[in-house]
Parts: sequence; C-alpha cells; structure tokens
Amino acid sequence: MAPGVLHEANTPVNMPTKNNGLSSQELVMAEKESHATVLKTFRLLISDLCQQFEGGHPGGAIGHTCIFQYEFLHLTGYKDMTFDQLKSYHSERYDALCPGPPEIEHEGIEVTTGPLGQGIANAVGLAMASKHLAATFNRPGLDMVSNHTWCMIGDACLQEGVGLEAVSLAGHFKLNNLTVIYDNNQITCDGSVDMTNTENINNKMRASGWDVLDIQDGCYNIAGIVSALEQSKKSPDKPTFINVRTVIGLGSKVQGTAVAHGAAFGAEDVAAQKRAYGFDPDGHFVVGQATRDFFAELPARGEERVREWEALVARYAEAHPELAERFWKRVKGDLAGWEELIPKSFPEKATASRASSGLVFNPIAKELDSFMVGTADLSPSVNMIWPGKPDLRSSCGIDGNYGGRYIHYGVREHAMCAIWNGLAAFSPGTIVPVTSSFFMFYLYAAPAVRMGALMRLQVIHHATHDSIGMGEDGPTHQPIELAALYRAMPNLLYIRPGDSEETAGAWAAALAARDTPTVVSTSRHALPQRALHTRRDGVRRGAYVLEENEAAALTLIGVGAELAHAVGVARKLREEHGVEARVVSFPCQRLFEAQPLGYRRATLRRHGTPAVVLEPYAPNGWERYADAAACVTRFGHSLPGTAAYRYFGFDVGTLTERVLGYLEKIKGDEMLRREFVEI
Amino acid sequence: MAPGVLHEANTPVNMPTKNNGLSSQELVMAEKESHATVLKTFRLLISDLCQQFEGGHPGGAIGHTCIFQYEFLHLTGYKDMTFDQLKSYHSERYDALCPGPPEIEHEGIEVTTGPLGQGIANAVGLAMASKHLAATFNRPGLDMVSNHTWCMIGDACLQEGVGLEAVSLAGHFKLNNLTVIYDNNQITCDGSVDMTNTENINNKMRASGWDVLDIQDGCYNIAGIVSALEQSKKSPDKPTFINVRTVIGLGSKVQGTAVAHGAAFGAEDVAAQKRAYGFDPDGHFVVGQATRDFFAELPARGEERVREWEALVARYAEAHPELAERFWKRVKGDLAGWEELIPKSFPEKATASRASSGLVFNPIAKELDSFMVGTADLSPSVNMIWPGKPDLRSSCGIDGNYGGRYIHYGVREHAMCAIWNGLAAFSPGTIVPVTSSFFMFYLYAAPAVRMGALMRLQVIHHATHDSIGMGEDGPTHQPIELAALYRAMPNLLYIRPGDSEETAGAWAAALAARDTPTVVSTSRHALPQRALHTRRDGVRRGAYVLEENEAAALTLIGVGAELAHAVGVARKLREEHGVEARVVSFPCQRLFEAQPLGYRRATLRRHGTPAVVLEPYAPNGWERYADAAACVTRFGHSLPGTAAYRYFGFDVGTLTERVLGYLEKIKGDEMLRREFVEI
Repeated sequence: MAPGVLHEANTPVNMPTKNNGLSSQELVMAEKESHATVLKTFRLLISDLCQQFEGGHPGGAIGHTCIFQYEFLHLTGYKDMTFDQLKSYHSERYDALCPGPPEIEHEGIEVTTGPLGQGIANAVGLAMASKHLAATFNRPGLDMVSNHTWCMIGDACLQEGVGLEAVSLAGHFKLNNLTVIYDNNQITCDGSVDMTNTENINNKMRASGWDVLDIQDGCYNIAGIVSALEQSKKSPDKPTFINVRTVIGLGSKVQGTAVAHGAAFGAEDVAAQKRAYGFDPDGHFVVGQATRDFFAELPARGEERVREWEALVARYAEAHPELAERFWKRVKGDLAGWEELIPKSFPEKATASRASSGLVFNPIAKELDSFMVGTADLSPSVNMIWPGKPDLRSSCGIDGNYGGRYIHYGVREHAMCAIWNGLAAFSPGTIVPVTSSFFMFYLYAAPAVRMGALMRLQVIHHATHDSIGMGEDGPTHQPIELAALYRAMPNLLYIRPGDSEETAGAWAAALAARDTPTVVSTSRHALPQRALHTRRDGVRRGAYVLEENEAAALTLIGVGAELAHAVGVARKLREEHGVEARVVSFPCQRLFEAQPLGYRRATLRRHGTPAVVLEPYAPNGWERYADAAACVTRFGHSLPGTAAYRYFGFDVGTLTERVLGYLEKIKGDEMLRREFVEI
Repeated sequence: MAPGVLHEANTPVNMPTKNNGLSSQELVMAEKESHATVLKTFRLLISDLCQQFEGGHPGGAIGHTCIFQYEFLHLTGYKDMTFDQLKSYHSERYDALCPGPPEIEHEGIEVTTGPLGQGIANAVGLAMASKHLAATFNRPGLDMVSNHTWCMIGDACLQEGVGLEAVSLAGHFKLNNLTVIYDNNQITCDGSVDMTNTENINNKMRASGWDVLDIQDGCYNIAGIVSALEQSKKSPDKPTFINVRTVIGLGSKVQGTAVAHGAAFGAEDVAAQKRAYGFDPDGHFVVGQATRDFFAELPARGEERVREWEALVARYAEAHPELAERFWKRVKGDLAGWEELIPKSFPEKATASRASSGLVFNPIAKELDSFMVGTADLSPSVNMIWPGKPDLRSSCGIDGNYGGRYIHYGVREHAMCAIWNGLAAFSPGTIVPVTSSFFMFYLYAAPAVRMGALMRLQVIHHATHDSIGMGEDGPTHQPIELAALYRAMPNLLYIRPGDSEETAGAWAAALAARDTPTVVSTSRHALPQRALHTRRDGVRRGAYVLEENEAAALTLIGVGAELAHAVGVARKLREEHGVEARVVSFPCQRLFEAQPLGYRRATLRRHGTPAVVLEPYAPNGWERYADAAACVTRFGHSLPGTAAYRYFGFDVGTLTERVLGYLEKIKGDEMLRREFVEI
C-alpha cells in the first residue's frame, strides 16, 4: 500500500490530509498571533482566487468548501498543488487541479464531492472500511489500520435524504472513528436556513446515536475546535458530531448572507478586507513567510508518520507472515482465483437469473474476502447470501463484529450505494463492494451509482426483478425506462443476462472491470436453461450470434429475461410460417461498442436483413442496432408475470404475429424499411 | 368539486376514507365484542386473499398495507370495490382494482404508493394543500377546506431519505393537520429492524418538530388508538406521530417474523388461525353479518357529511360570491388566461433560457393563483420568483402564512417533487405545482418525478443548468446521460428550448399537458436571440424545420442550448465550404412522436439526406432521427462554459470540421452511410 494511499484514506472527505497530522497540543501551544496571521492569509487568498476570474464560491470556503481544501493541499506540501495550480481555480486550464468540486483523481482528495449529501455518506463508508480492515488484520500491538475519518459538511448535507440515511447508519454501526464537523453558518443559497429548516439538529443527532459537541464561536475559538477534535477521537462507541457556529464569508461586506456563497466579493470589498486585516490592498495572492513557516514542518512530520507505519508493517510481517501476505494481496487489489470459482455448468431446470447470480457469485464472496455485500433489505430476494456469511454488525449488543462482510442496510438504497463508494475509495481495490436491490430502486440510488462511475470505482450492483415479468408489484416496480439511463451512463456496464450461463458471463465482466461499476440486471422469474446455446464468453463481447442462419429473412435480438422469447419466436416463425430467422443475444450495449467494427457488423448483419429487438422496455438506444422493436413505452401493469407478458403482447405467439406483421408492412415500402418502427 | 374528490383529499394516504367518518365516541362506545369480531374477520379475510393465489403480502396488511385498504373500501361501501373485485387481488384479471400497491386511478385511493418513502411525502403535500387552500378560501364560520390528512406507514418510510426529508419539512411547516400512524412492528424483509436501525425514533421526531404519542398495545388497544387520533386533530401547531407497537402477521404461525411479510401463510396455518378465532376452518372469505353491520351505516353518514358540506358551500356562495367563483374555477382546474400572459416577443440581447423561463412564467405565476412554485434552494439561479411573490411559511415566528404560493424547500430535491405530487393529487387541477433546481439534481428527484408521471399529475419541473455549458461545477453537475432517462420515461415531456421564443413554446406545451408532467430544461449561459427564426408553435410539435434548403446535402439537428451551434455550423458550411445544409430544431422527442407520419417525414427528410444531431449528451435515442451525432459519451469537465464547449469539440469551428469529416467518410461507403456514427 503506497503510504499516500493509506494517507488519503486516513483523512476527512472535505478536509486536507495534513491537518490531521497536527496534535492538539501543538496547535494549542502555537501563539494566537501566528494563528491570526495564518487565518487572515488563508481567507484573503480565497477572496483573491475568486476575484481573479470573478467567479467561484468564496463564502463557504472560508469555512470548509473546495478552495479551503486546495489551499491546504498547497500549504501542507502536496507536490502537484503548486502555487500556479492553486491559481488555476476557475481558469480555462484543461489540466487544472482545482475544479469546482474536488475530484478523486488529484493527490490528497479522497472522494469526488459536489452533489450534496454524497460526501457525508462516503465518509461513513471510509470509516466503515477502516473498522472492517482493522477487525480483519489488526493484532495486539500491531494496528495496521487505524484511520479516523474527518468530514466537514454544511447545512445542505443534513437536509439531503442520502445524508440522513447515512447519519442513521453511522450511529447504528457505532462508528466511533468518524467525526463530522458541521460548518454551521445557517446560510444556503436562498438565505437564512430557518426559512426551510427549524429542527433541533443536536437532539436529532443524539437520537440517531451520535455524540454531539458544540462550538459557539467557531470563527475564532481554535483551541475549542482542536480539543473537540481530540475528544471525538476518544469516543468509546459513537460517531461524533461537532456543531461549529460560523459566519459565511467572514470579513467580507456580505458576511453572514447568502450573497457570500456563489459570487466573488468584488475588487473593492477584497481590498477593504485586506486593509481591515492590515494587508496591502494592492497585494494579491500574498502568502507571507509566517504562514509558510506555520506549515513548513508538516511534510517532514507526514513522512515520519509514514516511516513509523512502515516499521509497524515490518514487525507485523515478522509476527504474522501469512496475514501480512493476505493484507498486501488485498491492498494490491489482487482478486486472483475468482475465475476458477465460477461454476463450469448449471442446473438444467428453469432458474431465475437472480438465483443464477447466487450460484455464480456466492462461492466467490465466500472464498475471497475482498468482497463485501450489502442489501437494501432484500436478502430473501436477491440471493447474495453465501453459506455462513458473517454480518458486519456494530458491537451494539447484537452479535457479530466489524469483520463481517455482509451488511443489512435497511431500506436505504441511496446510502447503500453512496457508503459503498466510500468503501471502494478506501485504498481502491482493497475492498470490492457489491450492492443488491430490485432494479427499480436503483433509481433511488442512481446519484450514488453515478458517482461511483465518475470516480472509476469497481462497485457491482446486483439489480433483480427487472423487466415487466417481475409481476404483481406492478407499474411502480416495473422498470420501463430505467435501462435507458444506465445504458447511457458513462463508464458503467449495464448487463442483462438471459440464463445462468450468461449470468456467469455477466459477473465475469463485472469482476474484470476494475475501474468501472457494473449493474447485473436479473429476473425475478424462472428462465429456461440449456434450451439456449448461450455462451458466457459471448457476454464479454456485449452481443453474439446465438443462432446463425444463412437463409435468415430477419435477425431477432433477444435480451436478458426475454432472450428465450426471441428463440421461441424464431422457432415458431420457422416451424409454423416457414420464415427463417437468426437470433442475436445482446446483454450489454457498452461492451458491444468496444468490439471491432468487423465483429459488430458480422454479429448484426444489418445490411439487407431487417433486425427486430424484443425487450419490454423503452426502446431508446436500440435504434442503433435494430430496425424495429417490440417494446413498452407506457408504464407497466400489476399482474402475475406470465399474465403481464400476455397483457403487453409479449407472449411468444403474439410476438410472432407482431414480427410477421412488420415483415409484411415493409414489403415494398423502402421508406418504412429505413425507419425505426415500434411494432 | 365532486364531494368524492374533496373526500379523497380528505383522507389518509394509506388508510381508507370512511374510517375518518367515525367519531371517537362512537368507536369507543361500540362494544369490544363487535370490535373483536370485526378484527378477526378482517385478518382472516387478508389470510384468505393471499392464500387464494398463494402470494401477496399478508403480514403488513394485518397492520396497514394494501389489502387492509382494499377491505376497508369494500366494507365501507365503495361501489366499485365489489366482493368479486376484492378477490381479484393477485389474480390475472386485467381490470382488477386490487393491484400490488394501491393506484390513484381507483375510487378511494388518494395517491399511488409502493416505492417506499413516497407516500409519507405525498401526505405532507396533501396536508400542505389543505392548509394552503384553507388560508386562501376559508372565511369566518365558513371553512370550505378543513381536511386532516392521515398517513399510515411502516418502518421503511422512516429509513428512506425522501421520507426523512419530508418529515423535516412537515415539522418546519407546522402541519398540525397531518397525523402519521407508525405501524411499528419492527420487522422488515431482512428480519428484525434492530439489525439496521437502532435510533430513538420518538426523540428524532420530536427534534424534527413533531408531537409524539405512544401506543404500546397496538394490536388490541382500540380505545387508545382512537383517542390518540382524536388528540392529534387538536394539535395546535405540530404534526403528530403516533408510534403504534404492533405484531406483523398477528395470529399466524409466523407472526412477529419477516416470513409473514411477503408470502401467503399456507392453507394449514390459515385453517389454524380460523380455528383459533372460532371460525370454520373450511369457510373462506367469510364476512359475517355482524361485521357488515358494523360498517353498514357509514355510506349514509358519508353522504350526510357531503350534504353538510354542500350546505356550507351554498352559504359561502351567498356570503362571498366572487370568492366562491374563484374557488370553483380552481377546483375545475380552469387555467384560462395563461396564453395571453405569455409575452409575444422577447428582448434581442443574448439571454440564458433559465432567464427566459422567468420572462415566460413569472407573469403567469403572478396572475393565476392555481400555480405554486417550489425550489430546492436555488431561488437566485432558477428565476422562478415573480415580483412580490408571497412565501408559504408556517406560523413559526417567521412572517407570512399558508396562503403563500412560493416554497423554499431547502436542499431537498426529492421531497420537493414527492410533496408536490401530493399537492397536485389534492383534487387534481386545483393546484398546479412547479418545481425548480439544476437539471442534474432531478436525478435525486427522479423517483418522485416518475410517480408524478405514473399518477398522470400535471407537475412542471424547471430544470436549469443543463448541458456541459453550465461550466465550472464540472462533471458532477454536467448531465451527460440524464436526458436519456427523461426522454424514455412514459407520460413525461422533456423539452430543451433553444431561445426565449422556444422557451415560450416549452412552457405552453407544459401548461397544456393537463395529465402529464413536463421537464423544461434550460441553460445557465446566455443564448443568442433573434438570429434564429425560432417558432413557439414549432416546439408544440416537438421538432420543426428552422432553415429549409432544397439543395441541402445534409440536415443539421439542433437542440436546446446548442441550437445556435447548429445554425452556426450551417452558415459556416455554406459560406466557407460551399456545403448546403438545412437545420431542424428538435426540442422534444415525445411531442414529435405524436405528430402524423407525414409531418415527421417532411421535417426530417431523412431519405437521401444524411442527418447529424448536435447535442453534448449521450446520444441514446437520437439514432431514430439522425445518421450521426456530435455527442458526449464520457463524463464532463470542470471549465468555464465556453472553454468546456471547446474542450469537447463543441465550438462551431470544430463542429464544422467534424461534420465535414463525416460527409467525407460516407462518400461511397454505403455501409457506413446506413449505420449510426458518433463523429
């Protein structure tokens, strides 16, 4: 594990690394004078950085937002964050390290934040990862992993639902290695927070199982803040919430108002701030020697910490050579062995692909402890439980400990995915998280799934009950349009396997995608096996020819739970209507797009042969691969699965008629032949 | 207003109408014996209904879920809910009135529930609607609107983020006309709730501004429950949370366990329950006379209430004829006048379409009090504030009252849309809600936007900062794939107008769509005006020819903020390369699909003429209308707007080169010409 990586994990989500390196004593001993200078310099630099291009968010940065973090990275010696780079904030530099919200790609940034509420959930994940790895690898006197997670938030993170879900879970799991510092300035874009929120946040946090510490004079009471930080590290069994009252845009003309949030202060005001602080109003980006000196020794101290940790590692390797080997295997992200663990064959009896997912992945989850599995209260439905799976549970009187690798998330899809992003971001590769729920509820979780894709994290989502075939729960649970979102989402694989064999291929693709999340989309209902000559390696290519036929009058594209429908239609066409058809299985558009043009053309054979895709979803996107679609463009209907298929004309008989009708229609109608038709 | 409608609104989200008609005294006086008989009958009927087709959710229904509601509708005299219909639960009847989750289309159902957490947010909206209409129309002694909203929930609604956001808002707005009855059985699918949730819910609700009442013996303490319901109606200034301890699947072999949740009890267990209750184990669907008698007089009483209300209406009309006229205009959903209020022309200077939305809609919101506007803390950005707009604020010491029509939602996009669904569902048409936020954050709100579309509610979403042009906030805020979701979502209009004139057309389409939600998707940055000969009526048709050209070598499809790019490319092609192009403006796919085939073909002229669409989004779905796309299939980049366009090759110069390159490539390559190409 590169120390930098441990270090990254060992930090707040919205607060720079090295601050963590300062002990309270040291901070408290430092004279007030130097503190005042540093703070003034810090604030004026924020004002200058926004004034430079007359944009950005200065007000919150004087409390905790991104420029705050960028300045710290610069002053605490992060090599990439040069003074020039610091000044790239809001510039037109393509290679700027100071984007609007911080991005994980850059040294010293643990997770990409920006969409409100995600960061605090990521922090819960970072803290949980630390607890889990500590429980797994630490030995008496040898704490290989002992991170404390610090997270700075504003008012919004306590209003967003995903943040509230995460808060509730952090308290439940008694994450005493998590400290949330609430930059309580009582201002959001619309103005005073009491316009929209008048709850008693301290009592709410206590009721959620948190320790609460108050800082009344948050703009100046440094000693108080430092001792609160120290106290929070000693919490025996609760996460800590430090409620720090601050003033947004402190020192500016607009301090304490919403105006300070999203616009530069203006040249005149910035000059006035400098005068008030005893700085030269005509000086810009001034960082005096006193301020540089204040941070000067931090890099050395950080390196000392690294050396200490490396020495610990050496002792650990001596005392526990096998454990140490396992530890480094984990940290390197080595998942070797999964391929052999996937069954070579599957039962011939009809099997729901959600069950096939269990057959494929349970043995892997059991054997390889890199995997952690979460479910949003659907354990009985999603088949992700492996024999003897240990739950990760807090020491709150329930049995089990943090070494467990299965988490019951309750009905909190969004926090599940956001917290899992935090686990995946903790020294990426060390933990590979798997989430599970009904596919429809990945709409609740979509903002977090998106952040996982944006952060290039390997998170695998097992989304069951896809298609209208999931039945009685009806239109609120039938995901007509959701596949269109995930097929369009960058850096994500959305895969719909058609049987157990293809489910093996889907998981293989997901496990091989080390920088990309995957949604494995499976059926609630039983699917025929064997009858289809499916190929797991075909799934890896996105689409493949299932039944070739040189004399084919058309190509039928089958997808996931409805692949068998395509095969059935092809047979019926041949046997009852003398119409020859070829069948293509098409589980994943993104993987298919990555194939060479030659392969794609040979698979689709579109030129001259009309192609019809059969999928009871909105057809958006299939127009690229097919000339017509049997699809569903309205909401679903509550009926038993087979009745639902019939209701939408998706039984093999009706589908066959619809396909024949299309072939009839395009006869001699070259114009229609060239247009995409919903049949 | 059909009394039924007022009645519907005057009910719990998850609890039947007529129960509300019983006064506490009457219930308390009724003998325990008859209560016991009714409850046993009620529970056994639930067991039978699930046993019938060996499926469904019996455990929770013995507390509050859908069969509970269906039985009440039947027993309290809802005409459509015949005994045959009641028995259609989980049947293959296409016309069943007993779908998995309840659906708004059916008499006696106020909102469609199912996705957890939506219902409680809808209930907050129903209560808010009542408060608002009461403040607007009630006069001393003449309470035209005085609904109390009752909402029954389970554990999950208190875990889902959207529910938690709504809870916080209900407390803030002091909705003392809202009672939430918590069916606290401490069981979810995965088992005991304390596996996932150990917070002190009562303290949490109190901290959120709620009154809390406890019922320990919720399965039997009828008098206690009734008096708690009565007490909650008297709350001076807070919503009430009644924490009722219950036992899931009471009376079954699996009572108190997760097994009771999602599967029929089994014939043997159902028979045993009947024996234990002193019923004939071989009798099925037995509703004795005593039970029928218990509910017998309710329809008459309901009609009496209606007559009372109608008499009140008559007195009101006499005392306040103009108000009464306004009231009925509102209830009829009459929005007459909006068309005249839309400006005939707009300023010539470059204008951001988010600002154009203000120019178009502010006058309408000001004049027509049917409209209520909410924003998720982005008032300064979304331009939905009209001069002198009154805020809806609680009487919690902040000025303003419930008559206000503008709501600051805080940073709670999901609850905003879910609560607004409740307002729209309150006697539909009486209130037309408008939401506003950045487009990217409609991914947070998507589950609620979807429910609005499913319920056929007119809710208008003003989604600003679309496209990569929104700039510095970068990839977390740039909606690359989100349009694909909303273009695929059934019964929803996603419209991207290209300038002020088209923005007028977008709002006109949204206002005309009385059973369909609309997302008006606008730009953060200024767009050229006038230069384009745009037509608002063209927007109503989804797409139209902006610049015809008989000699065109290709069709350029321009969309929204990038429409001007298409026009610029066409000019450059003609002036600098002698290539003639026609330009189609394409703001809304759904509206275009509703046009006659002839219009669609004449607009696109695809046959012979290649079409290229220019939109910096994932292209999924455009393949139907274009042969090639200049699009973006990766995440965005944090840069100032114009620099972001340049970075992605979306400046007019680069776009022109890309288009020329495509024309070159397809020369003589018939195969490529027939394929969709990302240029």
